[in-house]
Amino acid sequence: MSGRTNRAVRLARRPQGLPADDVWRIEDAPVPEIGEGEVLVAVSHVSIDPAMRGWIEPTPSYLPPVEIGAVMRADAVGRIVASRAPGFARGDAVAGFMGVQRYWAGKPDSVALIPIDTRLAPPERYLGALGLSGFTAYFGIRDVGRIGEGDIVLISGAAGAVGGLAGQVARLSGAKRVVGIAGGPEKCAYVTDELGFDACIDYKAGNLFKALREACPKGIDLFFDNVGGEALEAALWLIRRNARVALCGAISAYNDLRTLAGPKSYFNLVPQRASMAGFIVLDYADRYAEARAALVEWHADGRLKAREHVEPGLDRFPDIFRMLFRGANHGKLVLAVDPD
Amino acid sequence: MSGRTNRAVRLARRPQGLPADDVWRIEDAPVPEIGEGEVLVAVSHVSIDPAMRGWIEPTPSYLPPVEIGAVMRADAVGRIVASRAPGFARGDAVAGFMGVQRYWAGKPDSVALIPIDTRLAPPERYLGALGLSGFTAYFGIRDVGRIGEGDIVLISGAAGAVGGLAGQVARLSGAKRVVGIAGGPEKCAYVTDELGFDACIDYKAGNLFKALREACPKGIDLFFDNVGGEALEAALWLIRRNARVALCGAISAYNDLRTLAGPKSYFNLVPQRASMAGFIVLDYADRYAEARAALVEWHADGRLKAREHVEPGLDRFPDIFRMLFRGANHGKLVLAVDPD
Repeated sequence: MSGRTNRAVRLARRPQGLPADDVWRIEDAPVPEIGEGEVLVAVSHVSIDPAMRGWIEPTPSYLPPVEIGAVMRADAVGRIVASRAPGFARGDAVAGFMGVQRYWAGKPDSVALIPIDTRLAPPERYLGALGLSGFTAYFGIRDVGRIGEGDIVLISGAAGAVGGLAGQVARLSGAKRVVGIAGGPEKCAYVTDELGFDACIDYKAGNLFKALREACPKGIDLFFDNVGGEALEAALWLIRRNARVALCGAISAYNDLRTLAGPKSYFNLVPQRASMAGFIVLDYADRYAEARAALVEWHADGRLKAREHVEPGLDRFPDIFRMLFRGANHGKLVLAVDPD
Repeated sequence: MSGRTNRAVRLARRPQGLPADDVWRIEDAPVPEIGEGEVLVAVSHVSIDPAMRGWIEPTPSYLPPVEIGAVMRADAVGRIVASRAPGFARGDAVAGFMGVQRYWAGKPDSVALIPIDTRLAPPERYLGALGLSGFTAYFGIRDVGRIGEGDIVLISGAAGAVGGLAGQVARLSGAKRVVGIAGGPEKCAYVTDELGFDACIDYKAGNLFKALREACPKGIDLFFDNVGGEALEAALWLIRRNARVALCGAISAYNDLRTLAGPKSYFNLVPQRASMAGFIVLDYADRYAEARAALVEWHADGRLKAREHVEPGLDRFPDIFRMLFRGANHGKLVLAVDPD
């Protein structure tokens, strides 16, 4: 034993709808000694993502379901406290799928562990703008959305982690006009004033379609959808010739996909010769370095704004996770693990 | 005047739902003398297509709406009875958008008039397998659907003009398994026995999803959709990794697109990294020769089966048009113009 105690959030049962507290079990256990080729990481920050809701469903999707009793899967950053793996030294900052826990021990490859440079940005930013959120925005806008010079781009969930970055990546990749959809005047002000979108529509104000048509009188060339439901329905009515819809998420219905409304307006894809494509960022793993290089450069010279919403307390995970689904976060939601 | 009398079906008013008889006005008028650069064609067969329902809606789509009082737009074939245009001679068989009428006069380019070879196939086939239906199947399966060797392909409206051809083009382009959806046992038998599909599901028998899952236990790589509604909903649940949906039509709701159900299952595009794209065959006009060459070759050596459902009588157009929407046609629906 290392003499340290780990605390981990484990899946206790499968949720129905919004995950209640008793979906999780928080357990302490001794931290084991590491074996040859392994490292021990003290996790400092855990990424809280909408996709995690899908991972606890019983049916396999693009990743196998988190098993009952297992530590909850999550992207995380931390610092190596012991290493018997070449290329990883005590004190190094790292990121990888280490889960919702204080300590993670194992072979680096098993969680795609990579070093991060905390001189360039604080560690939690490697869960957001300089990590998977950034990569999702980068590949979603550029590869899936095939952004073109002069495009009119719409982003739903624009105040969220991926949405806020997607709009900025679109601008930095040639978009002429970038419009967001977010919930409430405060988030909309953040999206326009801090993130530099040209306009942001408050979907809670009602009549989303009308507001969208006024904000995009010439139509939409690229829609990056994090939300589904009404946002997708409205956007598809407004797509232009050869428009692309990049389907990233559907947070409006993640707690019960059966409630997800199908977009009647899908048929507008035909006269507009438009397309709609889903993607999973993990497929682009062999090009993360390309995305990271671009994001780091934009971030370093101030053209890419990043904001993390950090909530402390591993024990508060059940409640922090639910914040995503009531839209309580501005920017990338991150759990800061309290020291033991 | 040429001394001849034309009879034309004109749009009298915009329909609500299924077009009633009084949506149309059938009028006689003298056939004018042709001017320099013009031809006069005696129309023998008129193509009856689901897309025509969209053309009489008041809102512009991929073509401007047919105006009230105008001759109904339609693809048609006929024989030149007088010509003052170079390259077109009296007696030549031709195809083009000549409309629902006995005679058409004008400049060939204005209706994309092309010569057809009636030694290879009867003229009406140039409205189906060797014409726009064939081109739609060809580009929809190959370019939009990006068919790959070994694909499992599903076709809705499989007994219809385009669907029956799409399944055959899929097979001829590398598909491993081709499954159709059609209405009723007789149509299903036609699809499997005459057109050579591996299986055909009768959507009228109920529980389409279950039947589809049994017919495609390994899932679907390419879905060519002519129907929308339940077919699309079910197919999207069964798509495999990197699947493509080629959206050709939505005949289930053409008479009132507001009644079209949106597919809740669209979100399965995300974990499957799949895509759905609409297309309009007219965009491929500069490649029709490529499609025609392939279709003519397949047709000549018996690998492409074509069937026209010919209904006589220009005056019967209102009723013949409605046949499409009650699924009364097997194969390509064609109106044979009675001689004056």
